[in-house]
Amino acid sequence: MAHRVVIVGGGFAGLQAARALKSAPVEVTLVDRQNFHLFQPLAYQVATGALSASEVAIPLRGILKRQRNARVLLGEASDVDLDAHTITLKNLPNGDGEETLAYDTLVVATGSRYSYFGHDDWAPFAPQLKTLDGALDIRARILRAFEAAEVEPDPAKRQAWLTFVVVGAGPTGAEMAGQIAELARDALPHDFRAADTKQAKVLLVEAADRVLTAFDPRLSAKAQRALESLGVTPIVGRAVTGIDAAGVRIGDEHVPAHTVIWAAGVTASSFASKLGGEQDRAGRVDVTEQLTLPGHPEVFVLGDMARPGGELLPGLAPAAMQEGRFAGRVIRDRLAGRTPPARYRYHDKGNLATIGRLRAVGELGPLRLSGFLAWALWLGVHLAYLIGFQNRLVVLVRWAFSFATHGRGARVISR
Amino acid sequence: MAHRVVIVGGGFAGLQAARALKSAPVEVTLVDRQNFHLFQPLAYQVATGALSASEVAIPLRGILKRQRNARVLLGEASDVDLDAHTITLKNLPNGDGEETLAYDTLVVATGSRYSYFGHDDWAPFAPQLKTLDGALDIRARILRAFEAAEVEPDPAKRQAWLTFVVVGAGPTGAEMAGQIAELARDALPHDFRAADTKQAKVLLVEAADRVLTAFDPRLSAKAQRALESLGVTPIVGRAVTGIDAAGVRIGDEHVPAHTVIWAAGVTASSFASKLGGEQDRAGRVDVTEQLTLPGHPEVFVLGDMARPGGELLPGLAPAAMQEGRFAGRVIRDRLAGRTPPARYRYHDKGNLATIGRLRAVGELGPLRLSGFLAWALWLGVHLAYLIGFQNRLVVLVRWAFSFATHGRGARVISR
Repeated sequence: MAHRVVIVGGGFAGLQAARALKSAPVEVTLVDRQNFHLFQPLAYQVATGALSASEVAIPLRGILKRQRNARVLLGEASDVDLDAHTITLKNLPNGDGEETLAYDTLVVATGSRYSYFGHDDWAPFAPQLKTLDGALDIRARILRAFEAAEVEPDPAKRQAWLTFVVVGAGPTGAEMAGQIAELARDALPHDFRAADTKQAKVLLVEAADRVLTAFDPRLSAKAQRALESLGVTPIVGRAVTGIDAAGVRIGDEHVPAHTVIWAAGVTASSFASKLGGEQDRAGRVDVTEQLTLPGHPEVFVLGDMARPGGELLPGLAPAAMQEGRFAGRVIRDRLAGRTPPARYRYHDKGNLATIGRLRAVGELGPLRLSGFLAWALWLGVHLAYLIGFQNRLVVLVRWAFSFATHGRGARVISR
Repeated sequence: MAHRVVIVGGGFAGLQAARALKSAPVEVTLVDRQNFHLFQPLAYQVATGALSASEVAIPLRGILKRQRNARVLLGEASDVDLDAHTITLKNLPNGDGEETLAYDTLVVATGSRYSYFGHDDWAPFAPQLKTLDGALDIRARILRAFEAAEVEPDPAKRQAWLTFVVVGAGPTGAEMAGQIAELARDALPHDFRAADTKQAKVLLVEAADRVLTAFDPRLSAKAQRALESLGVTPIVGRAVTGIDAAGVRIGDEHVPAHTVIWAAGVTASSFASKLGGEQDRAGRVDVTEQLTLPGHPEVFVLGDMARPGGELLPGLAPAAMQEGRFAGRVIRDRLAGRTPPARYRYHDKGNLATIGRLRAVGELGPLRLSGFLAWALWLGVHLAYLIGFQNRLVVLVRWAFSFATHGRGARVISR
């Protein structure tokens, strides 16, 4: 019987691990709760109506269609037995309760989500972008808020509908805030009659002392100015201390607002705790330099949920993809009787964040980019990494129209 | 104060009425529960993963953006006071309970849905295509059924997951059945490992004695042969007598199936009953030859929910659009002191239905078309009538890829 590799999670890390095993003498089973790979870096564009769900959610079966040694199973990995070398699956699509799946090698790549710093009661008022459903929920809330402003006669209440608070000024938060401001200032003003969408306030709240802390302070400053010129109000060095249906408390100040987007405090997915290893405060699992669970060389833990050699790597797609390919390489080498590389090394390919029309910042090795060049690079890189020629073409069409018309093509509120 | 025209429903009829009033001295208020116009003729392609929601759901505000005498209100028209000339709106986006809206002229165009012939208990097991949410629900059910077949070891249970029953063989039902068969035979076989999707059964059940009864019997016969060659099993002259989670009863026979799509028994939307006029068995309101409610020349009732002069018109987009434009014309003439046309005349532009790749049937006046020519015409007409150049281009890209690769680009299961 072929060596059984079970991969949990079809994100960047898991998918690359599966692909890296294409020619290996293994049986790959990729398990995911969803039937698609979410191209996370563009999820915020779904949330703001620039792109449609299908353009960033690519069916896993389609991606692995031609890889005959790989199969996809829809289901939720709920537990692992490290001694018996099995995982437990639940929520199977045929309605059966649970199934046990045996592995020879296990690859865990279930990713991360944003945590509410122990305030899970904030979650219903402040959805996050980590899933496609989250993105669609946020889109519906944003568009519905403008609709509410249109029918609301009371000026103060109307302003609360036109106030958007984004918590966390990492790339996702900054991109989100920029896009909402562009929607309000640029795309929507002529759509409404009673509400003046240009009166919208977009607050970007960050507990650290600057936006985009992963970037050089000079780029942070540029990004902050770009955000301000779009109409975003960055509020740095202050923490959110409360969220409810009426608004957000920032430090001691209460801001009436009905639309809050949460993009702060990354935490490892809950499956990390099933692995029994050391976890840091954010739930990330300590793994060896070969990305395996200490004492379990047959279990890889990849991506946002792992801390290789106790080191914290950036939670970016390229890092996850590299880890996936590395794990595939180690598995192949072991089966071929070769000595696998002793340690994973992160190759920093740089970092890009876009703020809005023609504006972005980027770091590529010693280079610091901003403005049009960074923006063009951002477009090119994201189009190139998006899976599927059809999706690239459709996204290109949508971007071209958004750019030319200042519109947003996917402004549908669906449940 | 300008003459207030309130239009309830942003479908084909309501939207055309609004547009026909573009240059009239009126204030148009278009009320809809949804923020988009659904291009109903392509909804079945969303349900089968060929198109994405945003491509057939076009924001009403975008469509009426430049029509300065028109505004859009999100809300549900729950009642009408014909004496006071007001309607009641509920489910407003700002959460307020109800609002009253006064009109000088009212245009009611809330459309139709499929009825379950008094068996509303079937509805949870047999969703319908009349809304975007319905289309997305059906897509999730179809794709999830294939996923269930993939994990189901028992052959009989697996076959039940691979059995799809479409009830009603009008254009929607026939198109739906053809697309599911193409999915199973053509698009998905290589996506699955354990399940043989080619074993899928697609039953198209019709109580009348042939499919596509609106067409000439010879075209029905051609359509039936085309369906059969795609792998659909048309079952004519037999009625569905029961539906539950386990399957469908067709006549006296029970067919185990978990995926049922309902496309039979059109009934007028429930708002029709608020108008207090004569209704036929399907809830359609009798209106005058000028499309107005008897005794209420200021109230137009258009589209699927009306029976102009006691005559039943086909429930097609062109008919609804013509009625919308006619109502606009009558309103304009009245305000200008001109004599409006005494009666609405339906101009039969023909009828097209597509069955699958390269197959369609059509009637254009005395012409009967089938095969490639009808199919090419179908594509052209639907692209031409789809609103928005961006949508046309994106749909064209998706169709070209579907055609070339036999794939379906939008196979996302979202909640």
